[in-house]
Amino acid sequence: MSGNVFGNVFRISTWGESHGKAVGCVVDGCPSNLELSEKDIQKELDRRKPGGRFASKRMEKDEVELLSGIFEGKTTGAPISMIVYNRDVKSEHYENIRSKPRPGHADLTYWIKYKHRDWRGGGRSSARETVGRVAGGAVAKKILGKYGIKVIGYSVEIGGVSCEIKAESEEDYLKIFKKSERSELRVPERDAEKRIAELIENVRKEGDSLGGIAEIVILNPPAGIGDPVFNRFSALLSFAIMSVPAVRGVEVGSGFKVSRMRGSENNDPIVLRNGEIKLLTNNCGGVLGGITTGTPVVLRVAIKPTPSISKLQRTVDLDRMEEVELRIEGRHDPCIVPRAIPVLEAMCAMALVDQMMIEGIIPRSF
Amino acid sequence: MSGNVFGNVFRISTWGESHGKAVGCVVDGCPSNLELSEKDIQKELDRRKPGGRFASKRMEKDEVELLSGIFEGKTTGAPISMIVYNRDVKSEHYENIRSKPRPGHADLTYWIKYKHRDWRGGGRSSARETVGRVAGGAVAKKILGKYGIKVIGYSVEIGGVSCEIKAESEEDYLKIFKKSERSELRVPERDAEKRIAELIENVRKEGDSLGGIAEIVILNPPAGIGDPVFNRFSALLSFAIMSVPAVRGVEVGSGFKVSRMRGSENNDPIVLRNGEIKLLTNNCGGVLGGITTGTPVVLRVAIKPTPSISKLQRTVDLDRMEEVELRIEGRHDPCIVPRAIPVLEAMCAMALVDQMMIEGIIPRSF
Amino acid sequence: MSGNVFGNVFRISTWGESHGKAVGCVVDGCPSNLELSEKDIQKELDRRKPGGRFASKRMEKDEVELLSGIFEGKTTGAPISMIVYNRDVKSEHYENIRSKPRPGHADLTYWIKYKHRDWRGGGRSSARETVGRVAGGAVAKKILGKYGIKVIGYSVEIGGVSCEIKAESEEDYLKIFKKSERSELRVPERDAEKRIAELIENVRKEGDSLGGIAEIVILNPPAGIGDPVFNRFSALLSFAIMSVPAVRGVEVGSGFKVSRMRGSENNDPIVLRNGEIKLLTNNCGGVLGGITTGTPVVLRVAIKPTPSISKLQRTVDLDRMEEVELRIEGRHDPCIVPRAIPVLEAMCAMALVDQMMIEGIIPRSF
Amino acid sequence: MSGNVFGNVFRISTWGESHGKAVGCVVDGCPSNLELSEKDIQKELDRRKPGGRFASKRMEKDEVELLSGIFEGKTTGAPISMIVYNRDVKSEHYENIRSKPRPGHADLTYWIKYKHRDWRGGGRSSARETVGRVAGGAVAKKILGKYGIKVIGYSVEIGGVSCEIKAESEEDYLKIFKKSERSELRVPERDAEKRIAELIENVRKEGDSLGGIAEIVILNPPAGIGDPVFNRFSALLSFAIMSVPAVRGVEVGSGFKVSRMRGSENNDPIVLRNGEIKLLTNNCGGVLGGITTGTPVVLRVAIKPTPSISKLQRTVDLDRMEEVELRIEGRHDPCIVPRAIPVLEAMCAMALVDQMMIEGIIPRSF
Repeated sequence: MSGNVFGNVFRISTWGESHGKAVGCVVDGCPSNLELSEKDIQKELDRRKPGGRFASKRMEKDEVELLSGIFEGKTTGAPISMIVYNRDVKSEHYENIRSKPRPGHADLTYWIKYKHRDWRGGGRSSARETVGRVAGGAVAKKILGKYGIKVIGYSVEIGGVSCEIKAESEEDYLKIFKKSERSELRVPERDAEKRIAELIENVRKEGDSLGGIAEIVILNPPAGIGDPVFNRFSALLSFAIMSVPAVRGVEVGSGFKVSRMRGSENNDPIVLRNGEIKLLTNNCGGVLGGITTGTPVVLRVAIKPTPSISKLQRTVDLDRMEEVELRIEGRHDPCIVPRAIPVLEAMCAMALVDQMMIEGIIPRSF
Repeated sequence: MSGNVFGNVFRISTWGESHGKAVGCVVDGCPSNLELSEKDIQKELDRRKPGGRFASKRMEKDEVELLSGIFEGKTTGAPISMIVYNRDVKSEHYENIRSKPRPGHADLTYWIKYKHRDWRGGGRSSARETVGRVAGGAVAKKILGKYGIKVIGYSVEIGGVSCEIKAESEEDYLKIFKKSERSELRVPERDAEKRIAELIENVRKEGDSLGGIAEIVILNPPAGIGDPVFNRFSALLSFAIMSVPAVRGVEVGSGFKVSRMRGSENNDPIVLRNGEIKLLTNNCGGVLGGITTGTPVVLRVAIKPTPSISKLQRTVDLDRMEEVELRIEGRHDPCIVPRAIPVLEAMCAMALVDQMMIEGIIPRSF
Repeated sequence: MSGNVFGNVFRISTWGESHGKAVGCVVDGCPSNLELSEKDIQKELDRRKPGGRFASKRMEKDEVELLSGIFEGKTTGAPISMIVYNRDVKSEHYENIRSKPRPGHADLTYWIKYKHRDWRGGGRSSARETVGRVAGGAVAKKILGKYGIKVIGYSVEIGGVSCEIKAESEEDYLKIFKKSERSELRVPERDAEKRIAELIENVRKEGDSLGGIAEIVILNPPAGIGDPVFNRFSALLSFAIMSVPAVRGVEVGSGFKVSRMRGSENNDPIVLRNGEIKLLTNNCGGVLGGITTGTPVVLRVAIKPTPSISKLQRTVDLDRMEEVELRIEGRHDPCIVPRAIPVLEAMCAMALVDQMMIEGIIPRSF
Repeated sequence: MSGNVFGNVFRISTWGESHGKAVGCVVDGCPSNLELSEKDIQKELDRRKPGGRFASKRMEKDEVELLSGIFEGKTTGAPISMIVYNRDVKSEHYENIRSKPRPGHADLTYWIKYKHRDWRGGGRSSARETVGRVAGGAVAKKILGKYGIKVIGYSVEIGGVSCEIKAESEEDYLKIFKKSERSELRVPERDAEKRIAELIENVRKEGDSLGGIAEIVILNPPAGIGDPVFNRFSALLSFAIMSVPAVRGVEVGSGFKVSRMRGSENNDPIVLRNGEIKLLTNNCGGVLGGITTGTPVVLRVAIKPTPSISKLQRTVDLDRMEEVELRIEGRHDPCIVPRAIPVLEAMCAMALVDQMMIEGIIPRSF
């Protein structure tokens, strides 16, 4: 129940600060006999890594080291401890704002709660904390791979520019994902991508930032997952997603559009296809009554504009208790959506593995 | 972790089926020395009760009986067991659909998961299950009352008709709430209410249903609540809300609108007012970095159109494994938003009390 | 984490006071399609019921009513709510001790913790609370029955009089259990039983009470159960057992005798029998490294003498804050061991089912 | 619920294998503003360290490095990651027994459960895993220190040789503890210590090992701690203690002796001393009805003889599936009791801090 542990049977503990020695995580509950190497983890960390035209210029290779839980190339069932050393720490940008909580950040609330704040780069509330999540998610994805399950994500809207996503089959989703992975912005449509890239460039020059919407999809999910009433699978996923920094909303299937739909439109007709029960549409987003239907689980996630902007902002100096103006220096992403996607995928993958283990679908040993 | 228990320290177990003997709940972890009577519970149950122009015609008085945990008018710290007998059970409407899963309902997924289904009125997946939640929420609200904290809710959009909500202070929110409580549809604006009422009337005649959006607000919340990283207060609330039947989305503060906002717009300036640190705006919806700021916690919730409609629908007869047409008879709400609101409030109230107890803000004994 | 819920996937919430309206429990997480009737529950409640020569004279039939979770004779996967009304409540014995905490009882500590006390018969701290445990345990035993697993218990020592138990096979244990079930004291040896019966008779006349030791055995347990490091199966069982009122100690296998054994004596040799790996002895009590070996799980439990005695005792009147003498009237068991055994069995059965569900050995639906 | 995480609010995740790169732990939920340095941790690790006349000859300095959660000498409320590199790893002793499960060890059950075993020094089931527990316990002890609470432990019996412990006050307990800390065997009585030392010497020469009994005491505990019914403080402690390798039994207060005591002997009279309510004796061991009384919490723990002995033992070669004889080489403790004591203290300290945080006695920030 304390805040830095996630999951019940497949369980992750993350640790580390933005400007501390290292960040890392411990994965407990991973089944034994899973082939796992640092390469599997690194692949996902690389997707989240800073750098590139639209991201922070902090130079972090984010190289992961596996400290335990693997023997002879396979998991043993013991906890997997992973560590990523912080290499490019520059705390000097933060020196002059150490008593000035940045608007839109956790600075103020951490200070209220803990009375002691790690002012260096946001400390624990920095998005750097998500390194541990992505590392844990990489393990979860490896497990899901054994069941042919994939968790994918891409940008569907940034700065108000949206791309039309049409996916009627798992193949469609995979094509969209592949396109998005070739885009630095994870936008699966060339035209939209171009317009968004320009917009980001302009906004960055103004010292401002942009928000957006990501779509996360679980392909080939098992049917029947989710505990009814409280622990609905949709609720478990929402918890996982809303725990990611900068997320301000989540919806499943037709989501907020339901307000403008009739029951007759929103209900997915139940049909037979080759003798099997299927849903004709997927407005339910893969979850009915909190339990998976076996159709793709489709979520959309609202991600706020990066709060770290170089535009002048109003805040209060906590030492002197007076209003001051603040200009945030440093290396910040003008839009966090692309780098948030691997984190969101990781959270959904871990939530699914955890629930599948709770329900006995994934054994303790492969 | 099993599905029918919610919370960690303030913990509720709900039980009972729509067409069984009774529904009820057990509240564990309520502090002792809280004055509590059946009247406190009944008041909230009455807000959720069927009846009225826009709701199901099932005649349930929903009278609650307290079986334990109270002595001499006060809680003792022992579990509070509450029971509501089902009075107006008519299972005959369901006889002819017992093998035909209703589209948009949990029938199909429960059948996949449990292989044994209570076809009478949806059994456990019926919204009647929420009686227990509202009863538990009434206890939580009584506790919050001791701290001057209120959890309120109202409709902000139904069938695409929205009302403009302008609230800049806690008083504004209370006025909106009071207006909404005088409306059968919980719509706080007369004009919007009228248009929505007509719309519902028409849609009902067509044998169809409407969805909508509710806003839930926590007034006067303590600052500093929420465990960072995973157990963010926003994530805990999202879990609580997404666990309610028919909910398809949740957003906090500026929510999905962030996609069209700049950082400079969305960041809430930090200012001094009478020597105290305040936020000039509340785009954060009362939560920053997962921790409460002390400003109102504002959530919006997407609620789908009632899946039970009398229009013809396509489904599959599970016994004969053939496609059939289905017309759902019975007594159903054409729009579930108004009756969902007390349930959403209850969930938020319980989540807040639980977290306050976990963090030691509420003691074990008053 | 609050105190009246036990288990994670197979989860029980108990409620009710000794002199309240009723006691009961809600079982959440029971797999669907289990045949279950009130008779299954009643059978176990009858084993715990007061009455007989050596037990309290409170006349309770302890008739259970099933309120939910069963449909057409089978569990549906929904919570099973069970209620037992209190029939023979006589609070008058307690009137004169309402401000006088009884030594050896929870009166004082409940008063410290909750500041509000249900003085009628101990309220929630009464052993009557265990009715809910036995009801939940009956469901767990029914589940274990499908796997050929039995949880049995019997007295091995009362008032210092012990019986020599020699069991080398599961059959031996079953014989011992059957003998014990024919004894009101659950003593499996006629001679020992006779001596103990006399001792109890004498002690009762003196207004005093006796303690003893029970042995609980899980027969035919699956091998490989238990999470290493913290959630060892032996630790989970110890938690379950130490949660039972009046228990003061628990040991597994050779237990406290290990202090007088060499490693070479205590280690169980690993051998082959008909091509299968076996342990030659069972000093480990069925658990090695926290994980079950497949041999019988053997626990011994120390149960203190009933604290309610009619001998004069020293206590303090909390209203007047002065030392007083106290003589406890009422209907009390001179030795609680025989009636504690079904409760201990129930706790072990529930702990095992819970862990088997967590580990995916028992599915969500039969 | 997975096995390597302990606690709910004050929560520890341990990781690492005996012959892997390192062992460590992550402490989540530690309040902020606690002064904490590597020295605080090292002090406790040194008490558990191998070396000396009666312990394993493995040369480990067990130097801890703090990786996160501390800033400017104080905890920040963020997770505290601690690492201890393994320096003196000699896996060659284990090469020849890689397919031969050692009797009395977890080898066989790990192999059954995980099908993949880390044969090097027992891997995760090695007592080396307890390094992480002691490190976490050091943090817990530092917190308890702020409340004047101490958790102490000492040997009371080894190889059947017991020392008479007479403690009537907290001062008595402290004296006993100080004596025991001067003894390599943690035996607080010179005569007994001498006899035990000789016994161990002889047993070691025979290639055998000894078990014993430790006493763990919580001094100056707060009254009113413990959730009634299931989460009794005595049950929480028993779980914590039984989770330690080699523990086979636990008792609180008069423990197994209750079988030979009358109620009138075992009940602790309630008296007034200087106007305060006190217990005349402490047979309850500081816990009544699962809730602390404020008197010292006294537990006794049975610890089995080290299973690693150099005497010939019978086992089965799992590769060839044939019975073989086994002689265990390597560096093993002839008696694990002295080194187990800091681990037991650590577990009790963490269980107490966790429960105090759950109950709101310890805040999130000092």
